[in-house]
Amino acid sequence: MKPIQVGLLGIGTVGGGTFSVLQRNQDEIRRRAGRGIEISMVADLDTERARSVVGDKAKVVADAREVIGNPDIDVVVELIGGYGIAKALVLEAIAAGKHVVTANKALLAVHGTEIFKAAAEKGVMVSYEAAVAGGIPIIKALREGLTANRIQWVAGIINGTTNFILSEMRDKGLDFDVVLKEAQRLGYAEADPTFDIEGVDAAHKVTLMSSIAFGIPVQFDKAYVEGITKLAAADIKYAEQLGYRIKLLGITKRTAKGIELRVHPSLVPAKRLIANVEGAMNAVVVNGDAVGATLYYGKGAGSEPTASAVIADLVDIARLHEADPEHRVPPLAFQSSSLVAAGGDLPVLPMADVVTSYYLRIRVSDEAGVLAKITGLLANAGISIDAVLQREADEVGGEGSTQTDLIILTHDTREGDMDRALAEIQGLPTVLAPINRIRKEELSN
Amino acid sequence: MKPIQVGLLGIGTVGGGTFSVLQRNQDEIRRRAGRGIEISMVADLDTERARSVVGDKAKVVADAREVIGNPDIDVVVELIGGYGIAKALVLEAIAAGKHVVTANKALLAVHGTEIFKAAAEKGVMVSYEAAVAGGIPIIKALREGLTANRIQWVAGIINGTTNFILSEMRDKGLDFDVVLKEAQRLGYAEADPTFDIEGVDAAHKVTLMSSIAFGIPVQFDKAYVEGITKLAAADIKYAEQLGYRIKLLGITKRTAKGIELRVHPSLVPAKRLIANVEGAMNAVVVNGDAVGATLYYGKGAGSEPTASAVIADLVDIARLHEADPEHRVPPLAFQSSSLVAAGGDLPVLPMADVVTSYYLRIRVSDEAGVLAKITGLLANAGISIDAVLQREADEVGGEGSTQTDLIILTHDTREGDMDRALAEIQGLPTVLAPINRIRKEELSN
Repeated sequence: MKPIQVGLLGIGTVGGGTFSVLQRNQDEIRRRAGRGIEISMVADLDTERARSVVGDKAKVVADAREVIGNPDIDVVVELIGGYGIAKALVLEAIAAGKHVVTANKALLAVHGTEIFKAAAEKGVMVSYEAAVAGGIPIIKALREGLTANRIQWVAGIINGTTNFILSEMRDKGLDFDVVLKEAQRLGYAEADPTFDIEGVDAAHKVTLMSSIAFGIPVQFDKAYVEGITKLAAADIKYAEQLGYRIKLLGITKRTAKGIELRVHPSLVPAKRLIANVEGAMNAVVVNGDAVGATLYYGKGAGSEPTASAVIADLVDIARLHEADPEHRVPPLAFQSSSLVAAGGDLPVLPMADVVTSYYLRIRVSDEAGVLAKITGLLANAGISIDAVLQREADEVGGEGSTQTDLIILTHDTREGDMDRALAEIQGLPTVLAPINRIRKEELSN
Repeated sequence: MKPIQVGLLGIGTVGGGTFSVLQRNQDEIRRRAGRGIEISMVADLDTERARSVVGDKAKVVADAREVIGNPDIDVVVELIGGYGIAKALVLEAIAAGKHVVTANKALLAVHGTEIFKAAAEKGVMVSYEAAVAGGIPIIKALREGLTANRIQWVAGIINGTTNFILSEMRDKGLDFDVVLKEAQRLGYAEADPTFDIEGVDAAHKVTLMSSIAFGIPVQFDKAYVEGITKLAAADIKYAEQLGYRIKLLGITKRTAKGIELRVHPSLVPAKRLIANVEGAMNAVVVNGDAVGATLYYGKGAGSEPTASAVIADLVDIARLHEADPEHRVPPLAFQSSSLVAAGGDLPVLPMADVVTSYYLRIRVSDEAGVLAKITGLLANAGISIDAVLQREADEVGGEGSTQTDLIILTHDTREGDMDRALAEIQGLPTVLAPINRIRKEELSN
């Protein structure tokens, strides 16, 4: 049988990895797919670099539309990234009847609904295993492996840069800024690290997982996104003393009122497997009503791990592209006619309606009655306390005045109620600095 | 579209779970599968129990052949277990043109080649996600998620009973026999626990994973199988002191000479995620050349976790059964024409040719020169030592004679060389008890 012909749009880190893994493992991949998979065309503005990667094995062009317009190409792999030209090219490839594989989480988290609709109308597949958690086959697990389940929640470490920074902060007791510089030096963080450290990249990924888990359209605009820039070494130390680690989690959860969709630093019990995922590694926990908690762990980025996911999609296409389009695995797990409309039965909840528990670090002047005052305000707001950690006072400033950190863990509380209580506490004259509030997730089964 | 009609053979723990999860989540499953999935017939010798489970929702019969012979049934789910009648019924179902889903690892590990061949000839699917690691979609990960990779090795905790026993031994410092009794009382171990504690169940499962990972026929008869019955609390304690945990691992590895296929207790570095998998949970690490190490974790047994895997197979069949049989996902990951013949390029190696490292516990009389003598014999056999732990001598016996445990960790060694060296060491007059030898796996990336 004739090999599947693949056209690559962009041959940077992931494209280069895809090309070289396909070359290296071509026999094994052919034995699995039932036919060869060949990259026969590559489009890249830097044609010289592209040629240095592919040699004479593939035709190199500068214009992506030459690839899309070539009738011999069966599958277009989009590795350009971003929302702009990538979106136009993906839609053109679909219109030309090509299957599409993409690693572009930003594009799908924002424009996925439009893209999947176009693909369904044209009867082509759009696959994106590489868009979430790199080489970990988490899209496949959610979309195919756990189809029996009513998914309850998904929580993941899905950004390697921030997990590397948090691991280093804990290991070495350093503050965020210092570690970020080190991470940039080592290549774990980009020169402009905003998308990673502000949680945007993780939010793109959890938006996709939310859609697959619950059968809702992608709704990145409704996600709550908070990064790790405000975490101090002290928070990590206090969390440790209380039996927790701090991780940047992407969380999506089904509740009676709707879907939670949020990215923020979270305290996680140190005994949970996911709390022990260190460095740039990724891991996702999925909780389904039948299976309970399952966890998926591996490299979330990098040339060959991401290529592993791109090629798995290509093999799926090779295996399935002759199947009836109505009955192939739907891109968002649920058949497109069965997606719940945005804002329908399963609206994405505003952050004020999310219920979770909290870690609070409150810098107070060390005088009688402070704790009573603060806990009184929490009680008034209906917030119950799980644990309190009061450090010995530091001697600061003149005239014997001292300050101390008051650490409070709460039970489950509506975020809106917590916001109001914190505003009141922040107004107390004995509270000396902005309160640091970190959410806490037990992630129990 | 008409719902897929499913016939269940056997409605015990897993069958009951399958029925109730399919009922409970039927809307969600239909939205994913694109059509309903209905259990319309159930065969069980205990028709009364079967009726108490399914009520009037399905026809109950005592004779499995009534299900197989019913032209309205699309898929037969075999949950009887064992090699006997289950094999005959699976082959009859295939001959009748039914797709088959089974959780029967023993059957497939021994007769899989015959069964998959019959299915290929008939153009039907045989799915068995539930046969390995319960609800964890590990078959799908190996067969579809990691198709880009040349798999290097797979190592898993794939038997919950033994992992529960080992966790309890470590937690409570108890010996094997004591904990086994407790596990039986709690329902974690069966009245006859032989298959679990002797490693047979794990060997069935790793045999299947070996076949999928490397594209070889199932070869259970070539697996090396050693259980956990000889482990002492002391071994777990010494391992801990050296930075290791002891786990019963199913391991299959590609080497230049062939395939390793083995089940035995293994020391694993305590810092590895898999070393921290506790209780009855399962986890599998897969190492591929492109993706590196990935890990899959979850419940490996139980009614609904196993049902989760059975139903995922049913959804796959609903989605794919109209696809061209030549291009569906092949049951053993590689197209059947592409499997390497047994004993061909990739023979399963005899245990003597396996290369690994070792933990040795040697009970010696505490006298001058013992360590020199033993390490000399190891050196003569070309075995190099990684670490030695010598405990303070216990006072045992009269006349001031004392004994002590000598713990040795070795570097990589051919098992056959180790066997010969141990025979010599065992013969020394200063060695007072049978040497306990446990293999050690670093499981590094």
